[in-house]
Amino acid sequence: MKKNGRPEIPRKTIYRLSIYLRCLARLHENGISTVSSEALAKAAGVKPTQLRKDLAYFGTFGTRGLGYDVTDLFKRISEELGTSRLQPVVLVGVGHLGLALLLYRGFEKEGFEITAAFDSDPLRVRDAEIKQPIHGMEELPELVKRQHVKMAILAVPATSAQEVANQLTQAGITGILNFSPIVLSVPEEVMVNNVNVAIELENLSYFTQE
Amino acid sequence: MKKNGRPEIPRKTIYRLSIYLRCLARLHENGISTVSSEALAKAAGVKPTQLRKDLAYFGTFGTRGLGYDVTDLFKRISEELGTSRLQPVVLVGVGHLGLALLLYRGFEKEGFEITAAFDSDPLRVRDAEIKQPIHGMEELPELVKRQHVKMAILAVPATSAQEVANQLTQAGITGILNFSPIVLSVPEEVMVNNVNVAIELENLSYFTQE
Repeated sequence: MKKNGRPEIPRKTIYRLSIYLRCLARLHENGISTVSSEALAKAAGVKPTQLRKDLAYFGTFGTRGLGYDVTDLFKRISEELGTSRLQPVVLVGVGHLGLALLLYRGFEKEGFEITAAFDSDPLRVRDAEIKQPIHGMEELPELVKRQHVKMAILAVPATSAQEVANQLTQAGITGILNFSPIVLSVPEEVMVNNVNVAIELENLSYFTQE
Repeated sequence: MKKNGRPEIPRKTIYRLSIYLRCLARLHENGISTVSSEALAKAAGVKPTQLRKDLAYFGTFGTRGLGYDVTDLFKRISEELGTSRLQPVVLVGVGHLGLALLLYRGFEKEGFEITAAFDSDPLRVRDAEIKQPIHGMEELPELVKRQHVKMAILAVPATSAQEVANQLTQAGITGILNFSPIVLSVPEEVMVNNVNVAIELENLSYFTQE
């Protein structure tokens, strides 16, 4: 996927930026203000050449012999990822998993806020701790437009996942985090990341055989 | 990671085997008994050369001009992945997420059974639908040994994740599916797969920027 006017950057590079960001946050918490590319690469579990190559996509960083300024680099990566400001995310499907995601308190410090939830049965009684409103699906298009939401978490059963994905993309959502165990069909400009717990277990299973 | 007497197989190949397996299951459900490598590759979203290369790690499959026998190939891949029999998995951390995973009914048909859950507070009142027993952490080593469990799902808060990972590896667990947002340190022979929702959102965020 090519972004306007930017070189095509490998998806893995973007994943590694997230890792670098977390390493830099930890360095900052520990009062460290500069870091060499070797030390940052080691903390992130990559080779220094990989780190330098990843950062080179976004311009020039660091000073030869001095390394990177921790705060500067954090800010630059965060801006690249679009997480320097709190981003709204909607969640569809308030079953057990959706509920767990709504109750998770760790997203905001990562730059995301689940602003609203949607469900085919919005009035069903759920855990009282939820702070987000739960809407019926018919309210999705207007809310997505009004709040300028670009991302959605899909936590509905496999049987309705494709239909909901269609509603999301029609409403203007361009990034879907899909927890349903099916491959979604979406328009080319929409990005889907899949979290499939069974496939992760299957992968581990291969490596844990004796 | 090298398995006894086997060539080193890329982790991505193992992930793709899981995809092939699901495509074959769908073909079987639709009453299709043979499939060409082109058609199977297309269903899995890979190139035919990639499919043939992936399968070649495990021996010879298919007949030139006739394609693959759907049932045979399903069985062979399932055996390779170790999911041809139901495998026991333990879950540690029965908070909101752990509960959602315990209540998920889709693992058994994928070859996995969460046989037991562990929590630092096993007696806390939870959803009554759970069928698995919830034990205190002190019972972990004996149960893992008795049930020959190799895999664990880690759904505890970040602050205790490393400590619990140590307990798991000491008990003989060699595959950990980690939902905590930290990088775990484990012995070389232990495999960790990470599910980090914030990193998936961050990755989408990059691609959904305008």
